[in-house]
Amino acid sequence: MLPGKFIVIEGLEGAGKSSAISIVEQALNNKQVSFDKTREPGGTPLAEKLRELVKSADHSELVTQETELLLMYAARSQLLVNKILPSLEKGLWVIGDRHDLSSRAYQGGGRQIPDDVIGGIANATLKGFTPDLTIYLDIDPKIGLKRARARGELDRIELEAMSFFERTRDKYLLIANHDDSIVIVDASQSMEQVHQDIEKHVNQFIDFHKS
Amino acid sequence: MLPGKFIVIEGLEGAGKSSAISIVEQALNNKQVSFDKTREPGGTPLAEKLRELVKSADHSELVTQETELLLMYAARSQLLVNKILPSLEKGLWVIGDRHDLSSRAYQGGGRQIPDDVIGGIANATLKGFTPDLTIYLDIDPKIGLKRARARGELDRIELEAMSFFERTRDKYLLIANHDDSIVIVDASQSMEQVHQDIEKHVNQFIDFHKS
Ligand SMILES: Nc1ncnc2c1ncn2[C@@H]1O[C@H](COP(=O)(O)OP(=O)(O)OP(=O)(O)O)[C@@H](O)[C@H]1O
Ligand SMILES: Nc1ncnc2c1ncn2[C@@H]1O[C@H](COP(=O)(O)OP(=O)(O)OP(=O)(O)O)[C@@H](O)[C@H]1O
Ligand SMILES: [Mg+2]
Ligand SMILES: [Mg+2]
Repeated sequence: MLPGKFIVIEGLEGAGKSSAISIVEQALNNKQVSFDKTREPGGTPLAEKLRELVKSADHSELVTQETELLLMYAARSQLLVNKILPSLEKGLWVIGDRHDLSSRAYQGGGRQIPDDVIGGIANATLKGFTPDLTIYLDIDPKIGLKRARARGELDRIELEAMSFFERTRDKYLLIANHDDSIVIVDASQSMEQVHQDIEKHVNQFIDFHKS
Repeated sequence: MLPGKFIVIEGLEGAGKSSAISIVEQALNNKQVSFDKTREPGGTPLAEKLRELVKSADHSELVTQETELLLMYAARSQLLVNKILPSLEKGLWVIGDRHDLSSRAYQGGGRQIPDDVIGGIANATLKGFTPDLTIYLDIDPKIGLKRARARGELDRIELEAMSFFERTRDKYLLIANHDDSIVIVDASQSMEQVHQDIEKHVNQFIDFHKS
């Protein structure tokens, strides 16, 4: 067991992950837990280059769904080995803006790549590593995309059809409902209520795990 | 069955792939077969960017062997869908400077990534697509690397230890000996003899397949 803990925030675009992360940061600061932050895809120089390639909407060629999947896991491999694991080994906690669950939901649910294909790549790359706590912010994609659109331009994946995000959300919920390390927060509530829910879950988790 | 044929040249660095390709080109020209050329990793704008990332020796972070594998297949997926298949569908033949066998040999043999991991990714990406003819130029890595070094600077993969290339060669030979679509040419011979051998195999193949 690693001395640090890995807390991941998940959800569709506009679910409110960025502000959820500030709530988690505050909770950790309040309890004097030192931590690092990461985002996926990205978080190392090479992984950020892969993020740029996978999200860019102006390729002159078709980006296959297999390429998208492989680049997500390549970025994740770099981040895990070069940042997440070293931090956890030092006893730092890590807050992740997305992690493996995003690939299961977007590439598995949205793109409908078979679970065993993703599972094989995930096992080879992550070798059983999983977050200690995932907070999944559940939102109707119609609401989430409206929030995200209000914020700025959409990238290649954000430009997908609504049915893509419906399938992604269904997969998020399916996995979350079968995994005790994932808590579901109703992100359609007021910002205040969402933040209270997150605070409650994180504080429970910290109290349970902080030695 | 696609109307075009896919001929791949394989082998360690300095085996003589580049000059072998000119021989194949000449043979196809002599028999009035129209063709395209590709190289791997690379061959599309996105795949060439991935080539650059995977071969660059100056990353400030460790490039994991999983990342290397995933980037190779991401590049291959782009090339297959955007170039190789469209050319073959139009009835053009395609000459490939490396293809899937390189990943089996380098990442499977050299890096010792298990066959089933590579096989899973290959199946998901290539969906059963295989070259019609592969010419494997077999060379002792000591000789090949000496030739390659004389030619210029070595990239990240070319800087591996000799044992890495020995394992890669062993894997090339193992696979080639069990696959009827791969012919082995002894690349330690004089350039003239190597070229004669290649010409013979390619002419046989063209005569058999040209309608
Ligand atoms: N519960 C909420 N009610 C109303 N608006 C919200 C709520 N939560 C977040 N927002 C707003 O929605 C927008 C998107 O939120 P945020 O950037 O946190 O989403 P995100 O999940 O990080 O999105 P992305 O996946 O694009 O990073 C922001 O303008 C934010 O202020
Ligand atoms: N049979 C041979 N005998 C001696 N020298 C050779 C022979 N074949 C090729 N060479 C020389 O070895 C060098 C490497 O050959 P070449 O560039 O064709 O290899 P390659 O397989 O394409 O390498 P790379 O994998 O780096 O692209 C060149 O200078 C070439 O002229
Ligand atoms: Mg965000
Ligand atoms: Mg060459």
